[in-house]
Amino acid sequence: MNKNSSNIMALAPNTSNKRETVCIFGTGDFGRALGHKLIQSGYPVVYGSRSTQISNLIPKDAEVLGHAEAAQKAAIIIIAIQRQHYNFLTPLAEVLRGKVLVDISNNLKLNQYPESNAEYLAQLLPGSKVVKAFNTVSAWALQSGTLDASRQVFVCGDDVEAKQMVMDIVRALGLTPLDKGSLLAAQEIENYPLQLFPMWKFPIFLSFGLGAFFFIYCLVLDVIYTYIYEKNNFSFFIAITIPNRVFPVMALILLALVYLPGIFAAIIQLYRGTKYRRFPDWLDKWMLCRKQLGLIALAFASLHVVFTLVTPLRAFASWRTSKRIVSQALNNKTEPLDHTNAWLSDSYLALGILGYFLFVLLGITSLPSVSNNVNWREFRFVQSKLGYLALILCTAHTMIYGGKWFLSPSAYKWYLPDIYILSLIVPCAILVVKFVLIFPCVDKPLTQIRQGWERNPKYSE
Amino acid sequence: MNKNSSNIMALAPNTSNKRETVCIFGTGDFGRALGHKLIQSGYPVVYGSRSTQISNLIPKDAEVLGHAEAAQKAAIIIIAIQRQHYNFLTPLAEVLRGKVLVDISNNLKLNQYPESNAEYLAQLLPGSKVVKAFNTVSAWALQSGTLDASRQVFVCGDDVEAKQMVMDIVRALGLTPLDKGSLLAAQEIENYPLQLFPMWKFPIFLSFGLGAFFFIYCLVLDVIYTYIYEKNNFSFFIAITIPNRVFPVMALILLALVYLPGIFAAIIQLYRGTKYRRFPDWLDKWMLCRKQLGLIALAFASLHVVFTLVTPLRAFASWRTSKRIVSQALNNKTEPLDHTNAWLSDSYLALGILGYFLFVLLGITSLPSVSNNVNWREFRFVQSKLGYLALILCTAHTMIYGGKWFLSPSAYKWYLPDIYILSLIVPCAILVVKFVLIFPCVDKPLTQIRQGWERNPKYSE
Amino acid sequence: MNKNSSNIMALAPNTSNKRETVCIFGTGDFGRALGHKLIQSGYPVVYGSRSTQISNLIPKDAEVLGHAEAAQKAAIIIIAIQRQHYNFLTPLAEVLRGKVLVDISNNLKLNQYPESNAEYLAQLLPGSKVVKAFNTVSAWALQSGTLDASRQVFVCGDDVEAKQMVMDIVRALGLTPLDKGSLLAAQEIENYPLQLFPMWKFPIFLSFGLGAFFFIYCLVLDVIYTYIYEKNNFSFFIAITIPNRVFPVMALILLALVYLPGIFAAIIQLYRGTKYRRFPDWLDKWMLCRKQLGLIALAFASLHVVFTLVTPLRAFASWRTSKRIVSQALNNKTEPLDHTNAWLSDSYLALGILGYFLFVLLGITSLPSVSNNVNWREFRFVQSKLGYLALILCTAHTMIYGGKWFLSPSAYKWYLPDIYILSLIVPCAILVVKFVLIFPCVDKPLTQIRQGWERNPKYSE
Repeated sequence: MNKNSSNIMALAPNTSNKRETVCIFGTGDFGRALGHKLIQSGYPVVYGSRSTQISNLIPKDAEVLGHAEAAQKAAIIIIAIQRQHYNFLTPLAEVLRGKVLVDISNNLKLNQYPESNAEYLAQLLPGSKVVKAFNTVSAWALQSGTLDASRQVFVCGDDVEAKQMVMDIVRALGLTPLDKGSLLAAQEIENYPLQLFPMWKFPIFLSFGLGAFFFIYCLVLDVIYTYIYEKNNFSFFIAITIPNRVFPVMALILLALVYLPGIFAAIIQLYRGTKYRRFPDWLDKWMLCRKQLGLIALAFASLHVVFTLVTPLRAFASWRTSKRIVSQALNNKTEPLDHTNAWLSDSYLALGILGYFLFVLLGITSLPSVSNNVNWREFRFVQSKLGYLALILCTAHTMIYGGKWFLSPSAYKWYLPDIYILSLIVPCAILVVKFVLIFPCVDKPLTQIRQGWERNPKYSE
Repeated sequence: MNKNSSNIMALAPNTSNKRETVCIFGTGDFGRALGHKLIQSGYPVVYGSRSTQISNLIPKDAEVLGHAEAAQKAAIIIIAIQRQHYNFLTPLAEVLRGKVLVDISNNLKLNQYPESNAEYLAQLLPGSKVVKAFNTVSAWALQSGTLDASRQVFVCGDDVEAKQMVMDIVRALGLTPLDKGSLLAAQEIENYPLQLFPMWKFPIFLSFGLGAFFFIYCLVLDVIYTYIYEKNNFSFFIAITIPNRVFPVMALILLALVYLPGIFAAIIQLYRGTKYRRFPDWLDKWMLCRKQLGLIALAFASLHVVFTLVTPLRAFASWRTSKRIVSQALNNKTEPLDHTNAWLSDSYLALGILGYFLFVLLGITSLPSVSNNVNWREFRFVQSKLGYLALILCTAHTMIYGGKWFLSPSAYKWYLPDIYILSLIVPCAILVVKFVLIFPCVDKPLTQIRQGWERNPKYSE
Repeated sequence: MNKNSSNIMALAPNTSNKRETVCIFGTGDFGRALGHKLIQSGYPVVYGSRSTQISNLIPKDAEVLGHAEAAQKAAIIIIAIQRQHYNFLTPLAEVLRGKVLVDISNNLKLNQYPESNAEYLAQLLPGSKVVKAFNTVSAWALQSGTLDASRQVFVCGDDVEAKQMVMDIVRALGLTPLDKGSLLAAQEIENYPLQLFPMWKFPIFLSFGLGAFFFIYCLVLDVIYTYIYEKNNFSFFIAITIPNRVFPVMALILLALVYLPGIFAAIIQLYRGTKYRRFPDWLDKWMLCRKQLGLIALAFASLHVVFTLVTPLRAFASWRTSKRIVSQALNNKTEPLDHTNAWLSDSYLALGILGYFLFVLLGITSLPSVSNNVNWREFRFVQSKLGYLALILCTAHTMIYGGKWFLSPSAYKWYLPDIYILSLIVPCAILVVKFVLIFPCVDKPLTQIRQGWERNPKYSE
């Protein structure tokens, strides 16, 4: 509702004259957009500018004055100019003493300067109260009113009252202030809008690489091999058949990769006999992107489910069914039900569905609003217990699907195993090691280590 | 949650850890419900009432006194009476001076009075500190304890300490206070509980209208035409076949309507040469309900997916399959695999699945808790790049599905095109115009305009 | 993004020396983990310990002093020792006067002590400002940096400034503080990490019990009966056929159980003529777990959908189709389309899909981030109106599925009804009673009662 109701508010200007004047230094794009929105929300706005010519770009209800005069009219001054021009503010230090300065600047690169823009401003004008805000909001969105995305405005600053005043303005504009603490947080807030899914990069590249490899592997075995040796053109397998062999393999491998770093960590801790030494860097990074790996695995699993379910709708499937049945009819006989086959087919389907169901449950639990509502015990129960159960079910699903092909030599075209066999290596290894790790003789020391116990405590004097 | 934490500001320390007495004026339903809940949470409650008779409706641990005596016992007075009776409080102004008055009233209509009830109360009693709270909570839910829905209590007021005291009570009742700023926000807070999906109305009416039109169109072409000219009664098509023709058409058109206003906006800005003039009202409103349009499109797409997947379970499908295979068997021949057909069938299925997959991704990103966790750059990447990709895939899915029917005259019953052809008009137009817009010679000026550049900047003197 | 950016921050220690020294009493596991993290975030840390020997367990940048000396160095002291040792702090009362003491302790059992640990600490040291915090964060997660789950830190305390200081530290560690009000909330905060889905226990046990009963019921009728009387071994039905009979039955019954307590409540209120008497305890508890019941019902419904959709992929289904078609081919005839059957099959599928669709909508609305964005009116519209519509559609789906079997005596093996008949009892009863309740002559008094009216108001003198 926040979104809706405040959009409505934005469309119907609030003409109350209780709002206090806000001063904006700088008539650039963001300064103008913010001014428009402030005026719409009932704030008197005065611009501080070198040229006091009134441009038609500036909202027509705003006043334009010189910097010093403009600053005197307001308790809050929004600094809508770029960092490299901040030093022109130094001569105004006396006028700005005790005022609230709102730094809304962004950089072009992550960690472009040694200190954040807001801290730099605070150093230049130690008598003013600097608050960082608004930099995460897009000028374009602010102006067009189409704030569909996050309405959160990160606010930080050392002066609590100043922060409060800025947060009141944020709320009046229909946005949600989020206090990020002292001005030390400004660096993080300035880096924030420059990020593009930083935690997703490695998992996505990994999936692309693995996916491309398996796609080509399947293409060679299923299309090219068949074309060369059986003279059959199955090039249309590229659309559904091959993706539907690659997707489940990717899902299983990526799900296994979610649990592999935990196994490594346990082994390292058991070997070292302590938890108080840092893991190698690659392991730390791997552990931090487990959630993303899991969600990509879930995406592949979902695609596998839908690609499998459309099978009966495919022209190829319908042709194959016809062919099979017609040949039975022409031979004047009906095949009896093969009970083993019925068991295998039903059980691998059932295992797959249950595994996928748990997988979706894990995905739902990782939604921010859900994971905020569970405590650690609950989160670990879901992600660890149910996660391993999902891995076991999916591994069993793949194994039973393979069934007797495993041992049949004709399944090994060009002596290469089918990809579902490749996909089983990592999950099976994990399940075996995990099985060893839950034996009491291994589990007990590990639990002790994780509770702070050390095998070789060395005290320095 | 994040929102909540930003509410907290350093204020005068609260040194007591005993609950302080709360006074409630009015023994109506909400007053009694709130009193019950306050007593349950350990607050001493005193009612201010004209009749000091103790009704059995009033919680038995509460005291009932005259208004003046009751007010003297507490620092916080909850005004559980209707706005039209507020003027009886004027004689109590002296007793209420400096007290925190909590306005919990709601109106019967949106913007019923020129000023909000809370502001009216503050005008009547300028010596008191008015805080708006609790009006978004239902008395019935408060009493029955079944607060499944939002536990958020919007709080606003001009006195920060008073607000803090009320927010502490809110927390003690197991609810989550959400600071909405100064008392100016009271109007919005009072309108909030009266809304019933205001942003959804237009998209839902539009979908109903369009849906009904396409349903009747299909009914005429598929059932009535067939009945008249082919003497076949396919009335059961109403249950699945026709909905499954209407749903994908609706999904594609509504998805296209999400991207159409952006195209219009770009053209208008290019034509005007500036972004500093407001869009026409209809365009503004359209842009504000794009999220809702997209979610309804997703709902139709999901229904289309499930309706398609159940096809093999239908008695009609099973009869059609039998008929086709039996006729092959009786003719003693098996049809060979039609490779073109296999390619077409597989590729339109694959395109549809991938388009739907991206569509679901867009839907997940629009969940409030997810969109709060992405920044603008990420949000625009998903909603714009991935959104257009989804539109392209779904349009291609529909085109390949149509395949050769396009040119076959027998497909035009009563010279009317099939609805999938109608559904392609808007998406294709959008994709063509978008393709033009990303040409550098068009994209460059547009980008400049959106960064604040003007073609004809006119300075007034 | 919170998660991502703060993870990154955690990996790159911020060495700013602006942070104020934090003192930690106790060098146990949590004390060390917190110290590590504080040092990474740029806080100077001093440990207060009985032995001032420097263990290699303690972060190497931290100082270790006696308790009194350590406490003098910092304004904030984190008490990382167990409650039973709190009394050793009493002699330090003078040193700790005016300091902020952060209680991070947890108990082993719910409500283990009469008062919370934080309140006990505040009683022991009345001159200090006690703040409860950090107890919901896992030491292991804090150290390994893998805070995938909730980053929320509940904070409560009576001194607002002290709370503010602790919340700044929480933010600096990349966590999100959540103010829970005064120290009275400490009991709740200490109980929080000990919970394991408390609201889910009853619904999950109920579903297990009911599910097991129906599974065995089906096993007897479908497998054992068939084996005894028809000598057919259909044991593979255990994998898919029987679960897919049990799941929809469970989904329908649990969905009905969501609406049953509301019906009971209405009848009780009509009978009593007042809403001001508490419901029986069992009804209260039932009403509080309706959301969980509904979500489990949705899980069963989802499993039913997928189990149904895989039907054409089953070896058994493929064998049955072949058999049917081959026998038609051998008899040289094609069966005509049975229109009644086509209607029934299509309409029960369509009703089921629409019912499931509404069901999913209800599920999405119950996500915390979505339900926080709807007001009471909207929430009740969705959960009550759409919920009943879903129940009606699902009941109709089941009835039409049953179709003519109802009256056929051969459907009653061992005189036992099929489970889909059993599943209809509760929903049909609810729909009938609900239909009576919406008659004006019943609805009007009920509405009045819910607005606070009483049939027999009794005033005591």
